[in-house]
Amino acid sequence: MSVDTVQALRHLIKNHLIDEAWRTRAQLRLDSLTKPAGSLGKLEEVAAQFVLAREEQIPAVRNPAVYVFAGDHGVTSEGVSAYPSEVTSQMVRNFLAGGAAVNVLARASGAEVVVIDVGVASDLCPSLQLIHRKVRLGTRNFVREPAMTEAELQSALEAGFEQGREALAAKRNLVIAGEMGIGNTTAAAAITVALTGATVQQATGAGTGLALKGIARKAAVVEHALEKHFGNSGQAASPLEVLRCVGGLEIAAMTGLILKAASERILVVLDGFISTASAAIAFALVPEIKPFLLAGHRSTEPGHAKLLSYMGLEPLLKLEMRLGEGTGALLAILVIESALKIYNEMATFESAQVSGIRG
Amino acid sequence: MSVDTVQALRHLIKNHLIDEAWRTRAQLRLDSLTKPAGSLGKLEEVAAQFVLAREEQIPAVRNPAVYVFAGDHGVTSEGVSAYPSEVTSQMVRNFLAGGAAVNVLARASGAEVVVIDVGVASDLCPSLQLIHRKVRLGTRNFVREPAMTEAELQSALEAGFEQGREALAAKRNLVIAGEMGIGNTTAAAAITVALTGATVQQATGAGTGLALKGIARKAAVVEHALEKHFGNSGQAASPLEVLRCVGGLEIAAMTGLILKAASERILVVLDGFISTASAAIAFALVPEIKPFLLAGHRSTEPGHAKLLSYMGLEPLLKLEMRLGEGTGALLAILVIESALKIYNEMATFESAQVSGIRG
Repeated sequence: MSVDTVQALRHLIKNHLIDEAWRTRAQLRLDSLTKPAGSLGKLEEVAAQFVLAREEQIPAVRNPAVYVFAGDHGVTSEGVSAYPSEVTSQMVRNFLAGGAAVNVLARASGAEVVVIDVGVASDLCPSLQLIHRKVRLGTRNFVREPAMTEAELQSALEAGFEQGREALAAKRNLVIAGEMGIGNTTAAAAITVALTGATVQQATGAGTGLALKGIARKAAVVEHALEKHFGNSGQAASPLEVLRCVGGLEIAAMTGLILKAASERILVVLDGFISTASAAIAFALVPEIKPFLLAGHRSTEPGHAKLLSYMGLEPLLKLEMRLGEGTGALLAILVIESALKIYNEMATFESAQVSGIRG
Repeated sequence: MSVDTVQALRHLIKNHLIDEAWRTRAQLRLDSLTKPAGSLGKLEEVAAQFVLAREEQIPAVRNPAVYVFAGDHGVTSEGVSAYPSEVTSQMVRNFLAGGAAVNVLARASGAEVVVIDVGVASDLCPSLQLIHRKVRLGTRNFVREPAMTEAELQSALEAGFEQGREALAAKRNLVIAGEMGIGNTTAAAAITVALTGATVQQATGAGTGLALKGIARKAAVVEHALEKHFGNSGQAASPLEVLRCVGGLEIAAMTGLILKAASERILVVLDGFISTASAAIAFALVPEIKPFLLAGHRSTEPGHAKLLSYMGLEPLLKLEMRLGEGTGALLAILVIESALKIYNEMATFESAQVSGIRG
């Protein structure tokens, strides 16, 4: 059995064949349906991408899941969040009890919620429903030292690979990378600056609800952290080194999930700023991952748009959400499923005897 | 029994009490849920609007329907559409056979499809599923004469009132105004210019797929029609006179549906450019209708954004669709239902024992 490593997965993804015959087939099908060509806009694009990535004759979302990786952040001791760290573990209990937004929206879209503790800062009671893969009781404060050691980064990535294997075993063809972690917009902002060249101001937002003064403090923290770890040449650092120094355990786990899923041609729907930061690390390692990524929505966090345009992804929804957990991506599944139903179920001009465009 | 007339419905809508206590109640509920305040963006706004309009303690979409009014347009003889007029009747048969996009998306959102012939230019075979309310075999060519007579306008409005009564009888609390009519973006463009003061160029788009030369011809047709009926003071004409002179039978019927539904506090989800043009006529007659209108999506037709901003409505979805029928509004129902589930099903900070924002 081959071992999952970033290098091995990178190799697999680079070697995926994207068969243009499937793109042609999808386009012919879409253009045969009883509607003006292209008039269903993004629904048509999504259906075509799904067919191309999955090579399914009758495309359908199967056994979707939202993986919610939870982890705390040492950098919260710098006062970068409106909520205290304890909320991470409290929300994990809320996920397990089915009361959070992710649970409500997962029920609505028929997705399974899988919760993984990769780094919550307190010991959670054993639970059959919680997957215990705690690497550490939260990351280190990355203003002072790297957020993780090499070994911790590997363990967090492996927690993500493992869920990618779970997705394969459960015969899922579409998954969501979701998260919970007080302080993680600070990590995502640092990743955004390091990868995309956005300024700290462009990448730093209110998170769960900072006022202007809090945002300025948070931006200063991001600035100091990047300066400390990468000097003035932040963009020269390798993606994995960015992830290790200023990332988070749940962010690394999502990167692992995304790499493993894409290596198996499983589509990944990205959620908000944090989920997309994980994908951006994966994309920086292996840009050939792109056909397997769908941007579920655009968050109001200003750095999110920077990450999406860095990868050239267009978000499906713009509902001014900024919650995370996987909530925006779950709403997007409703649109993706609608797109596939259009693809499969509509009558054609020929079958319905409808006249085409005037010659 | 009172008779439905525009004046009577206008009076009823003007007298709806909007009880601010319900707004406060909705906001308190939303802020008590385990998420940062406001972090679910438009989902929260939609839930609050629904509660305020419906005054339901446990808000839920009940027995939704999409009413697809079909009518032809005499102005098609000016060459303003990429498709021939026959497509209107062919698509009506497609709706009845369940093969059109509206049927697929209605199945996905659990909405009933109700098809009404108010002005298809050919005689359709009797069908149990088709509601026959044909006013005329298509409108008159409005470049030469008013699209409808006074009596025809009344009959078309009445066809809409009737479906509003059907909605009430079927205990629906949310309906969609949908349509089919080759040539109807030309009518909608003329309405947009007359109501909003947009220029003809700003309001005229490709419709089902005109090339640039075709769009220029269509714009000239709109310009001539407005000049003929209203001289240089298009904006001085009354909304009903605009509807009669440059509207369409299906457009008038949708206006009737919207007025009747709102008079019964039934929410109306608007679809694209044509559906929104009908709503804009209703809004011009009685601005107090607004709390009962939800803009489902924003079409790529340039005039659509003008109409939405004229009414101060924000579209839920922006999926670059331009099909009509009710398709964009049907997708929006999925989001609306998700918003209401969030409102009803999420745990509160208190029930889940989650800490609030730092003091």
